[in-house]
Order: sequence, then structure tokens, then C-alpha cells
Amino acid sequence: MPTAEKFIQDNGAEVHDKVRIETETLTYEGLILPKHKFSGEHIIMIKLDNGYNIGVSMEGAKMTILSKAKQTDYSPVRKINNENLGNITILGTGGTIASFVDYKTGAVSPAITAEQLVNSVKSLDEIANINAIPLFSLASEDMNPSHWEDIAKKVKEIHDSKKHGIVIAHGTDTMAYSAAALSFQLPEIAHPIVFTGSQRSPDRPSSDAHLNLAGAAKTAMSDIGEVCIAMHETTNDKTVAIWRGNRTRKSHTSKRDAFTSPNELPLGIVSKNIEWKQKYKPTSKETILEAGFDNNIGMVWSHPGLNEEDWQKMTSGKNGIVIAGTGLGHIKSELLDIVGKTAKDIPVAMTSQCLSGTTNLNVYRNGRELSEKGVIEAYDILPETALVKMMWLSKHRPNRIRELMGENLVGEISNSRKMK
Amino acid sequence: MPTAEKFIQDNGAEVHDKVRIETETLTYEGLILPKHKFSGEHIIMIKLDNGYNIGVSMEGAKMTILSKAKQTDYSPVRKINNENLGNITILGTGGTIASFVDYKTGAVSPAITAEQLVNSVKSLDEIANINAIPLFSLASEDMNPSHWEDIAKKVKEIHDSKKHGIVIAHGTDTMAYSAAALSFQLPEIAHPIVFTGSQRSPDRPSSDAHLNLAGAAKTAMSDIGEVCIAMHETTNDKTVAIWRGNRTRKSHTSKRDAFTSPNELPLGIVSKNIEWKQKYKPTSKETILEAGFDNNIGMVWSHPGLNEEDWQKMTSGKNGIVIAGTGLGHIKSELLDIVGKTAKDIPVAMTSQCLSGTTNLNVYRNGRELSEKGVIEAYDILPETALVKMMWLSKHRPNRIRELMGENLVGEISNSRKMK
Repeated sequence: MPTAEKFIQDNGAEVHDKVRIETETLTYEGLILPKHKFSGEHIIMIKLDNGYNIGVSMEGAKMTILSKAKQTDYSPVRKINNENLGNITILGTGGTIASFVDYKTGAVSPAITAEQLVNSVKSLDEIANINAIPLFSLASEDMNPSHWEDIAKKVKEIHDSKKHGIVIAHGTDTMAYSAAALSFQLPEIAHPIVFTGSQRSPDRPSSDAHLNLAGAAKTAMSDIGEVCIAMHETTNDKTVAIWRGNRTRKSHTSKRDAFTSPNELPLGIVSKNIEWKQKYKPTSKETILEAGFDNNIGMVWSHPGLNEEDWQKMTSGKNGIVIAGTGLGHIKSELLDIVGKTAKDIPVAMTSQCLSGTTNLNVYRNGRELSEKGVIEAYDILPETALVKMMWLSKHRPNRIRELMGENLVGEISNSRKMK
Repeated sequence: MPTAEKFIQDNGAEVHDKVRIETETLTYEGLILPKHKFSGEHIIMIKLDNGYNIGVSMEGAKMTILSKAKQTDYSPVRKINNENLGNITILGTGGTIASFVDYKTGAVSPAITAEQLVNSVKSLDEIANINAIPLFSLASEDMNPSHWEDIAKKVKEIHDSKKHGIVIAHGTDTMAYSAAALSFQLPEIAHPIVFTGSQRSPDRPSSDAHLNLAGAAKTAMSDIGEVCIAMHETTNDKTVAIWRGNRTRKSHTSKRDAFTSPNELPLGIVSKNIEWKQKYKPTSKETILEAGFDNNIGMVWSHPGLNEEDWQKMTSGKNGIVIAGTGLGHIKSELLDIVGKTAKDIPVAMTSQCLSGTTNLNVYRNGRELSEKGVIEAYDILPETALVKMMWLSKHRPNRIRELMGENLVGEISNSRKMK
């Protein structure tokens, strides 16, 4: 039997061509992927239309070419200056939206730049004059608080000098963490800051990158003065939902409409224009920057089996702790004393792993004891946003963390939290 | 100014009476709560109809009694033996469903027994002959793996001796953890096991306890051979949803319809009868028990800012680790080496903090590296169920954890996981 490479060649096909492979029992259609070190000698890896890769044994298989691989336009950014349109900057940080299938491993890697990305979305020409700036090229799981700081400083610089809105193209994994981080670092903004990304790389026909980028660009032309996230509203390729950046999370691993706000409806929906659904804070006169974080904050997920030793290990040396408690904000009774001891030394805030609803430390005895021992009630903030918030407070308001964790600073806690 | 107690007395009212309090600016209606050590001398604590407690200053306040406190019937369980009905056992473990407002603190405490609970739900008389057994009286945040073991042993004993279904009345905070724990310990069951609970204590007019208990009792009379959770389907007090116990979580801190299965629809809906919506495994000939857990498994929530030292502290001395990764199952690149090192010594399984969707370690380079380093892909299992599963495997199949974490044993992973 020939090797997979030979078989592909013999059929006149190349990597990235769209092909049909028929075996005795099944038929597959998809793009040929390059061979990688995990695939067997006689296995052809193809990427199916649904975005996933499978290995097909070429034993007894027949291959038909359906279409040849497209060449993506990676020329420098088109310079269009349409006087009838406004201007925005697209800041590239990496992620799937700026990625393509990696020829070495067959997996998706961050690689294309912000300029290349803009080139690939022709519809942007009709929305705004685009200034594209590549800042990082990172998969979003690699974003750290130091990157959040760099992004915020770059935003401030662009807002001050260019005086227009910004779209931040970002990986989806930690997009919500970064959006929360920017909301605390930039409490007043003179122009919009809109995160967007994609769940399928832009070189794939099914990519959500184009609609998301167009929706984000329109949002960046509006007067919204809150950091927001613009991503597919549904699985249809028609509308983009605008979410409050610090109250949103990635709630599905792969769907286009993965982003949701467990406690809120979208701020607006973008189709041709934006239809606003909620009140939002409009842009301010000036963009105010308080950049940087204290990295040294820990997160403890409360669960049966968690014990004193675990607590001690997870909290020792930390400057603050966020608990993702159960229900209304609980942790087991046998830990109340040690949690209370920690809460005397460093701020300890309680959130809920339910994600929807709000903490309430007044309903059950366990909650009251936590409250009495100095654990801070964080209401309906998401656990991950609480972590980012405490990292920011610990750097900029170290003496006021206990007071401010439960206050709504930039939309991260709903104002109606206390009387639900 | 008189004290709050004196003021209540002067108005002819008592603790637990329903009253209206009018102040200069606002009017409140609710039940008077007993004074507790946190409330000020001139503050009357009342429980509002929405279930929350607030303190009202009696300065300039006017009080009107709306209704006197009801006496709850706490007499021993009614013995009814209706030959036309089947039999079930209700096992009480505590939680809100077996609780009432505590006169010492004004908060809700677990206190009433399974017998008292059954007495309070008159509609059960028409569903089944009830055998009530109080096992624990615990708030569910205090459930530990040793309790899961005790519950499973009791279930086995009842299934073998009484030969009928069981309702487990349980606190909502960790109900889903306990349901998952029973599903692994009792992989084959001869009669149903149905968890239920409530978000409002049964002594409150708005309690969801009665409908949930009736729905759970009907489910316990069916032929379902999977551990399930029966709780309000919507906020209406009309239907109960039956969920697969090991694929469900408490997704809202306070709503009646708090339980959801991020990746699945309910198995069935109970109104007068049960309407089954999904295929389920029917009861087996015999109940098989493999009780007990290895407590010593850790959970790591992946987030920006997590570093090597954190990883080392959280994993040292553990027999296994579940990661709640970002997106399709990622953790930052700078941790890949140390995670790989840990994965050589102990099992490390990857789940997703998105909760919906499934992990896929084949799409991105970071995921492939994790996979190559021996990190176990756990697909669409919930992170908390993965923790319970590894605790069980580590006790009962210590040498097969790596193989079995990614296999569907008792419904915890959907079979279609690999081709979504």
C-alpha cells in the first residue's frame, strides 16, 4: 500500500484541496490536511465541513477532488480612504480570528496579522476606514495580566491620538477575562472598545470571523462607553450580539453563539444597524487609564472533598482569594474557621459557581457566619470577573478592596443585586 | 425609642406573623423574623415574600398585622396504606427542603425530618405509600464523599429489602455532585433513585418543595434505571423536569428552575403523569454497589495569572487532577511542561469551564501537546462530575483511570461526543 502522501499525489490532489473520500462503508468530504506526527502512515487527515479533523484509512479508498485549495490574499492592508466613512483601529492580539490551519501539525495556529485579517473581510470597506495594528500573536489561553496592561496602554494611546473607536481581535478562550480587565483599567473611555473573535479560523468557508468583525466595527463606530464583546447572536450567520464585557463568558466550547451573559440580555443586536436593547453608559470626554494588575490573587472552587490542607495550599502567599462557592455563596462548615482566619489577613470574596443569580450571605446560617468572619459578598459578579477585579483592586486600591469588591464600579455587578 | 422586641410586642405581633411596616418613604410586607446577633437594637428583621430578609428601622414606622403565624404540622408521619398505590422510600439528608427559618439567627437551618417533610406534602397520599427515613440533617455544602458512600449503602439496603424506588431529599447546592456520586457507585439499579430538593423552605407559602417532592415521587414509581434529579422545569409551579443526575448542575442561585443540563434536554417532564422526552436506561435486575471514593483528587480552574507555583501547590500530594480548562480544553503554554510532568505521575483529566460543548484536544496545537503529554481528554462531562468520577475511579479502578475517564460509564459523557 502506498503512503498517504503518495496516494494524495497519485490522485492529483494537494494539501488543502477539498476532496471526497469513499471507503467501503462511508463517504467523507473535507479539506486534506497536512500529515502530522500523530497520524499513521496510511491515514489521510481531513478537515470536515463541521470544522473537525478525522483520519481516514486509505485502504480501499477512492478519492475525488471537489475543488482546489484557494489562495488566501495575504498582501498588505488595502489603503482605502473613504471620506464618507469614519475611522476605527483594529488591534490584533491573535486567536482563531487571526489564525489558519497549521501545515506542520494540521491544527489551528495563530499566525495571520491584523492587516491580513482586515484584507480578508471585504465588507469592512463599507463600514469604516480601517487602521490595523498587530499587537500580539497569542492564543488567548496565553494571555496574562501583563498583556492586559499592554493592551490597555495601547488603547489609551490610540484613543488619545486617533480619537476613534477600537476593535480588539482576540482569542475566544479568555476574551471575557480580557474584556473585564480592560473595563477596570479604563473606567472612562472617550471611544468604544469592542472585543471580537471567532470560533472557526477565517480561512474556512464556515468561519464566523467576517460577520463578527463587521458587527464589532459597527459597534466601534457607536457612542458606547463600556468595554464590550461583539459575537454571533445565534448559530445563524446574520446578527451579532453586543455584550457587556465584564458580565459575559464563553459558555460553549465550539458554537458560534458561545458568548452569553448569565445574568443579562445583550446590550444590543447588530444587523445592518445596531438596535440597542439595554441602557448603556455613553462615551466620556476622556479615556482614563489605570493600568496593571496584582497577579497574585487565587481562585478556589468549593466542592465536596475540599479540605483544610487544600485551602492552606491554595491561599498561602496570596494577596487575595476569590471563592466560587456553591449556591448563594457557601463553603462547607468545617472550613468556616480557616476561611475566617484567612479573611482576617487578606481579602476573601465570595461568588457563586452557579454563575446565574446572585450570592446572598443572609439567607443561611453558613452564609451569615462567613459574612461575620469578614468574607466579602460579591453579589452577581461572575467568579472570573471577580478574580480580575481583585487583581486590579489589589494593585490600585489595596486599602479599599473589602469596601469595593461588593460595589458596582464599571457595570460588573448589577445595581439591583440586593433586592432580587 | 423602644427596642425592636418591645415595638413588636406593643403592636400585638409575634415572631413569624405576617405584617406590613410603613416608614416615611417605603412600605414592606413580610414575616417578622426573630432577632439575631447581627441586627441592631432598633431594627426589625422581616422576610419578604421573595424570600429575602431585610432589616427595617422602626424609627417612625407603623406596623399592621396581616396574618398570624401558622403552626406547622410536625406530628409523626401519617401511616396510610393504600393497596391501590405502590410504595416508595423518602430518604432525608437535609437541605432547604427539610428546613425552616431558624429562630436563633433568622436564617434558614436544616431541621425538620423526612417524616415531618412527608406530612407537609398532602398530595403524596395520592401518589404512593411513603416510607420516610431520616439519614442526615445536613446543609448540602457539608456533604462529603463519606456521606455519598453512606447514602449509596442505604440505597442498596432499601432496594434489596423493600424492592421499591427511592426519593432522596437533598440540599440543592451540591445535589448534582451527590447525584453524580450515586451514579458511579450504583452502576446498575433495580429501582429508581431520584434526587429532589427546594429553593424555598417548605414552611413558606412560595415553597417549591411540594411540587418537587410530588414529581420526584412519581419518577420513583417509574422504571428509570438511572440516577436522576427531579426539580421545577420553569418558574411556574406546574411541571417538574427529570434530569440525568450526572450531567446536571445548579445553574442559578435562587430560581426554582435552577437545575439545567448544559449539554442535554430533560429526560422527561412530570405533570399529572410523566412524559418521557429522551431514551433512558431502564431498571436492571439487581442493584450493584461499589461504594466509596478517594477523597484526594484536586480541581484546577485554568485562568490568566495561574503560574507554575500555583500548579505545584494545587497538585502536590494529590492522586489525580481535573482541570477546568478554557475553551476546547486549554491551559496556558507556559504550564504545558509542568502539567505534562504531573500527568506522568498521576492522572490529569481535561474538561472545559465553558460547561456546554465538549473538549477537543485535536483542534489547536496546545491541545495536541497536552494530549501527547498524557493529559486525558474528558469530552463533554461537567468539570464537577469529572472530579466525582475520578474520585470513584481512583478508589475502584486505580489502574484504569486513564482509559476510563474518557469513556462513557453511566451516562456522564454523551456517546456522540467525538463527532460534534
